[in-house]
Amino acid sequence: MLRSCTAALRTLRALRQAGRRVPRCEPVLARRWFSTEKVIPKDHALPNPSWSKDLRLLFDQFMKKCEDGSWERLPSYKSKYTQKSEDFKTYFLDSKLVKEQLSQAQLFTRGYEDGLGFEYVIFYNDDEKRTVCLFQGGPYLQGVPGFLHGGAIATMIDATVGMCAAIPGGIVMTANLNINFKRPIPLCSVVVINSQLDKIEGRKLFLSCNVRSADEKILYSEATGLFIKLDPEKSLI
Amino acid sequence: MLRSCTAALRTLRALRQAGRRVPRCEPVLARRWFSTEKVIPKDHALPNPSWSKDLRLLFDQFMKKCEDGSWERLPSYKSKYTQKSEDFKTYFLDSKLVKEQLSQAQLFTRGYEDGLGFEYVIFYNDDEKRTVCLFQGGPYLQGVPGFLHGGAIATMIDATVGMCAAIPGGIVMTANLNINFKRPIPLCSVVVINSQLDKIEGRKLFLSCNVRSADEKILYSEATGLFIKLDPEKSLI
Repeated sequence: MLRSCTAALRTLRALRQAGRRVPRCEPVLARRWFSTEKVIPKDHALPNPSWSKDLRLLFDQFMKKCEDGSWERLPSYKSKYTQKSEDFKTYFLDSKLVKEQLSQAQLFTRGYEDGLGFEYVIFYNDDEKRTVCLFQGGPYLQGVPGFLHGGAIATMIDATVGMCAAIPGGIVMTANLNINFKRPIPLCSVVVINSQLDKIEGRKLFLSCNVRSADEKILYSEATGLFIKLDPEKSLI
Repeated sequence: MLRSCTAALRTLRALRQAGRRVPRCEPVLARRWFSTEKVIPKDHALPNPSWSKDLRLLFDQFMKKCEDGSWERLPSYKSKYTQKSEDFKTYFLDSKLVKEQLSQAQLFTRGYEDGLGFEYVIFYNDDEKRTVCLFQGGPYLQGVPGFLHGGAIATMIDATVGMCAAIPGGIVMTANLNINFKRPIPLCSVVVINSQLDKIEGRKLFLSCNVRSADEKILYSEATGLFIKLDPEKSLI
């Protein structure tokens, strides 16, 4: 999936550089990246009625930053059973997963109805090797009453840092996540997750990130991530 | 929530020691711990038709271990708006959370229909200060195709380690989670999360855990957790 995403971003840039006007999220390309189904899947990284004013304002600010091409909004789909599932399984040859189970599968972060779970959009800056995730955690993500579950925060950190690793790194797997939770995040509030690629050593990618309130005044969490590029010739398990 | 859980466990033990026969999950107690609603909430830490043979076998093994009182099965409810929400909010005085949002809130790990998300049960051993979580991750928890999302694994690690901290520690918050992901976990497989309290220093509780396959042959992840006891006299934010 992530390797395909990289390839698609490159194609998109090449088309733009060649002077062809390409909409920010071209449905045909989107279909080719993420699915073999003939219907055009819904891009969930766009505003819906559940988005708060804070989330919409931040979204608009980042869409402006996309106008000069320095930032790009990354589309996001509920992944179902697709060709990429088969591609990925070649790395895990003894997976006992049966086709029926995969047919029900969907991306963890997109499994909820609008507003109840993870509402988010990720932007990418290729020059700076950074991703920024705008995230509103809904009422189904509760941990201690009134606040996000630590696991929901870890999930969005993994997604944001992972995307920052996957675009330059190809197919990558999380090897380590080290998260400092400094303040609990109120349910339904908006946070900004800033992630950057710090260094690459062989197949290892080292990243860091922080989670702040929409106004940047509160530092909620800090984290580091280590990701490993997968070797297409080897199986991991 | 967690403090109430501790108190309830103590009550349960006291009743048993006094020779009173108390069922493993007494509905009246359960209602008092987790909800002010008059209906008896459903305990989700019990087998349902989505549980695989592996999960049922492990569950039966641990239920046998409960017979001599060394282990206890911890019941689990979708938490909704309850008195404990109010209790907890006293620690976070400037929370802007409105009552309507809280009324929709539910525990992150219990927000799915049977079999689609987190199917799990946690057992606790008071003498050894250990928790064991039997976990089957459903198709809605997918990360890379065919495998659990790293965030879903982090979530169950947080839940298991957090419970191991909360029973001796009272109201605790996760301060750090450091997770090494060694092998990807196939979707719909069963894993066992073993967690233990390593030491207590003042308000800090240090814990560790590992995640293994049902037959214990594959080590999927290892993690450490640092939890902080909350001081009832102080607000965290």
